[in-house]
Amino acid sequence: MNSHILKIDCSDNKGLIYRISDVIYKNNLNIVKNDEYVDYENNKFFFRAIVSGDIENGNLVSKLQEVLPSDTTISLRKKVKKKIIIMCTKESHCLGDLLLKHYSGELNADIVAVVSNYDYLQELVEKFDIPYHHVSAEGLERQEHEKNILEILGQYSCDFIVLAKYMRILSSDFVNNYQEKMINIHHSFLPAFIGANPYKQAFIRGVKIIGATAHFVNNNLDEGPIISQDVINVGHEFSWKDMQRAGKNVEKAVLSNALDLVLEERVFVYNNKTIIF
Amino acid sequence: MNSHILKIDCSDNKGLIYRISDVIYKNNLNIVKNDEYVDYENNKFFFRAIVSGDIENGNLVSKLQEVLPSDTTISLRKKVKKKIIIMCTKESHCLGDLLLKHYSGELNADIVAVVSNYDYLQELVEKFDIPYHHVSAEGLERQEHEKNILEILGQYSCDFIVLAKYMRILSSDFVNNYQEKMINIHHSFLPAFIGANPYKQAFIRGVKIIGATAHFVNNNLDEGPIISQDVINVGHEFSWKDMQRAGKNVEKAVLSNALDLVLEERVFVYNNKTIIF
Amino acid sequence: MNSHILKIDCSDNKGLIYRISDVIYKNNLNIVKNDEYVDYENNKFFFRAIVSGDIENGNLVSKLQEVLPSDTTISLRKKVKKKIIIMCTKESHCLGDLLLKHYSGELNADIVAVVSNYDYLQELVEKFDIPYHHVSAEGLERQEHEKNILEILGQYSCDFIVLAKYMRILSSDFVNNYQEKMINIHHSFLPAFIGANPYKQAFIRGVKIIGATAHFVNNNLDEGPIISQDVINVGHEFSWKDMQRAGKNVEKAVLSNALDLVLEERVFVYNNKTIIF
Amino acid sequence: MNSHILKIDCSDNKGLIYRISDVIYKNNLNIVKNDEYVDYENNKFFFRAIVSGDIENGNLVSKLQEVLPSDTTISLRKKVKKKIIIMCTKESHCLGDLLLKHYSGELNADIVAVVSNYDYLQELVEKFDIPYHHVSAEGLERQEHEKNILEILGQYSCDFIVLAKYMRILSSDFVNNYQEKMINIHHSFLPAFIGANPYKQAFIRGVKIIGATAHFVNNNLDEGPIISQDVINVGHEFSWKDMQRAGKNVEKAVLSNALDLVLEERVFVYNNKTIIF
Repeated sequence: MNSHILKIDCSDNKGLIYRISDVIYKNNLNIVKNDEYVDYENNKFFFRAIVSGDIENGNLVSKLQEVLPSDTTISLRKKVKKKIIIMCTKESHCLGDLLLKHYSGELNADIVAVVSNYDYLQELVEKFDIPYHHVSAEGLERQEHEKNILEILGQYSCDFIVLAKYMRILSSDFVNNYQEKMINIHHSFLPAFIGANPYKQAFIRGVKIIGATAHFVNNNLDEGPIISQDVINVGHEFSWKDMQRAGKNVEKAVLSNALDLVLEERVFVYNNKTIIF
Repeated sequence: MNSHILKIDCSDNKGLIYRISDVIYKNNLNIVKNDEYVDYENNKFFFRAIVSGDIENGNLVSKLQEVLPSDTTISLRKKVKKKIIIMCTKESHCLGDLLLKHYSGELNADIVAVVSNYDYLQELVEKFDIPYHHVSAEGLERQEHEKNILEILGQYSCDFIVLAKYMRILSSDFVNNYQEKMINIHHSFLPAFIGANPYKQAFIRGVKIIGATAHFVNNNLDEGPIISQDVINVGHEFSWKDMQRAGKNVEKAVLSNALDLVLEERVFVYNNKTIIF
Repeated sequence: MNSHILKIDCSDNKGLIYRISDVIYKNNLNIVKNDEYVDYENNKFFFRAIVSGDIENGNLVSKLQEVLPSDTTISLRKKVKKKIIIMCTKESHCLGDLLLKHYSGELNADIVAVVSNYDYLQELVEKFDIPYHHVSAEGLERQEHEKNILEILGQYSCDFIVLAKYMRILSSDFVNNYQEKMINIHHSFLPAFIGANPYKQAFIRGVKIIGATAHFVNNNLDEGPIISQDVINVGHEFSWKDMQRAGKNVEKAVLSNALDLVLEERVFVYNNKTIIF
Repeated sequence: MNSHILKIDCSDNKGLIYRISDVIYKNNLNIVKNDEYVDYENNKFFFRAIVSGDIENGNLVSKLQEVLPSDTTISLRKKVKKKIIIMCTKESHCLGDLLLKHYSGELNADIVAVVSNYDYLQELVEKFDIPYHHVSAEGLERQEHEKNILEILGQYSCDFIVLAKYMRILSSDFVNNYQEKMINIHHSFLPAFIGANPYKQAFIRGVKIIGATAHFVNNNLDEGPIISQDVINVGHEFSWKDMQRAGKNVEKAVLSNALDLVLEERVFVYNNKTIIF
């Protein structure tokens, strides 16, 4: 089936759904599924539909633009498998989970490459016949290291970059290249325990629940729009190493869930928050 | 604001959303929020919207019916506080939770009466100035007892009946009077542990998680459409009395949550399942 | 049955369990249940047992002290119903939940009084025939207001004070009177969203999970030892008012759970964290 | 450190902890951690300790037996890495999760072989240099097929067999060889949806929560002692294929968690239930 994903956001107005569905109907297309949300505080309308039928791309978008407010953003893309690059450091659990899902056909994306500041995970990645790029940061300034990474990334066409426990902070310059295109997994229930070693922080604070957070990366460390979170119970008998170990199952599930949502283009970002259909 | 809740279900067809939004738009009404779902397996379309503006009731419904399939069901109701009657037996936790929410203005309904086969909870209910009807089953056939209850219920106008741990099985005849109007809380994670004393059953089976289920009541005990469920962890150190005690917090939360959904008319029933917007 | 709760903490040493159980055994007492935990990082031993039999109190404690390290703390108390005072402000959900549990015999404590800086909840409390003290803060310095509260509290003998949504910050001087005796419910998943209006903070940050935390009160706002936490899922469609409403069910469940643990003397505090048996 | 795991169960008696700790203490050994539980309904005592020091195995056991009831069972084993064999069919998620944890050193066991009734997963297993045995059931009676499997299993020494989505029912004869040695993951929240295709059953019933259960295998399908369970929320928009997909993350987490508990010898089985320390 020829399916497209249509995403629209604009200022809220009377009759938006009517106008959108009118255009779709009169173009002989069918809405397989649609969701909408109005942020009344900010007078903002969000719409996502899966549309089937014979779409002449530019045409539908321009017809929609004609009837929608001037501040409208429209995205209309064929429902196809996306391409992703995974960045990692030393820990294998999130990376491995994605490699396995990719291998078994469960991941709705192609992993085109893995980039790491270490060579620890090279052997694992190459078992799955995926290119591994070891870009060492040793002896390099951050800027230089990132330049080397960008060079590698530039060799591939990719839709999203997944930071699967990539443990180096990326500069604003780097991040700016990938607005809403880079997903990170943070090993805490944000905004609790921002920064380094959240499990140790959680241990010291004596919390009874720990968690993980997948978010888009923006210029502020651990402050990007949250896509998905989950938690598990812990007790006084957990050392921070125990928390870290237990947390791994949550981290990989949360990252995998967030990636699914992003790959299906179900996520809007607005005001540093996500709207998820 | 003059708000109505519009619920539509019909066989799925091309352009349904267009046709519905067209009618709404041309009647100068505004869709505040809408949700739709298509059950492709059964070719069935479900739609719910909150519509604001100057509605001449019958008119809108008939205009919608003109453009929608012949098997369409439409419900259009003003968004008003519903009336509920609570039925209970001896346990106070679910009843008390609703009484308190009602008292503090958190419940989106008026509790017009409480009916019980015992007088245990009379004192509690009367603290909140709500009529309590003790309809004893002692020495009565089921049919006679239910006739007595129906007489009491007949004295009130009510939208929903809430079985807040009402521990007698109701006959089909009784239940048939209240299709999709009667909500029960069952103290297990259905369909596990159907029937009597689910906590004891759970204890004997040695499960590590117990739960509660709120469902519409139909003719088959514990088999009605599920509205809401939740669970908690238990361990080997839990006796079945401990499970019962711990389960009470879940039971009341699940019942309260299900009732909220029903009171806001967010629930469709189809094929003995619920669609919830 | 004549049951006592025995709690011991001391520096860790070889044979502690042997020495403790030796004394208990030779005093003809029986251990109904026991738990122990060693914090190896700090070389600290924690032990709790329920002991049945004919206990001459001072005697057993002194016999235990003879065989245990000099830094040992021993608490041996008869298993009896504790007395609590509840402090609240305007919100009724946590208070009401405790009143109901008290009324139905589910709470393992007597509520001897309720103290509030407002009179909003007086009617509710008096329905349950519990003394309500309205201690207005209007026009008073914090110190003066707290002096008035302390006067009321002084009229009662109580084991624990429960802050059931008491919304005024208490001074260090006040808190110091009730070390490990005062339990607060905070309406966030601490340490996220410390301070005022955590639901608004959670809304602005766009989290996908919100929670509640019950903790002992110490001198630092929201930083006391955590006893219990729980969470619920939220989405973009939740306003902060929706979060607040949904959070109430969690708040009362978490507070109730923490209070159960404290009332059964299952909680040790060490290094600003709790060990819970 | 020379650590042993000591497990004891016997009929409950006065002074058991004293007697056990007395023997341990007088043998100059140290209890690093201990847990006990008394099932008062059945008058049964369970004890587990990690004991460090210079243990002469038989000696300690016989000394303990001298002071304990005649129905006592004692297990004293050096804390060493266990050996496991994994059995699977076509689905890779549970198997892959264990392979990855094994590869990264997170699994507290050696995977000595994988046995499957299909060759689907051979390529994946061999990436990790683990022997894969394809034992086809095609054209064979159950008995014959199982005989072939037993021959393979007989080639290895192993402590536990993990059924990581092994989709053929095993005969009583087969199962009897591995009492409390064989762990299965069932893709439902048992006892709900026993038998074939639980996700389809869950879909048809319209539940709002699905789950997974890890249990020891006994003679009755899906009725063995439950070790671990977990759940996730689902909604009306989930097809049973969606449930199956979402359930995979839970299945592998639950199996992995149960396996951890078993590998650390933290699980007792009694009355078809588990006691877990």
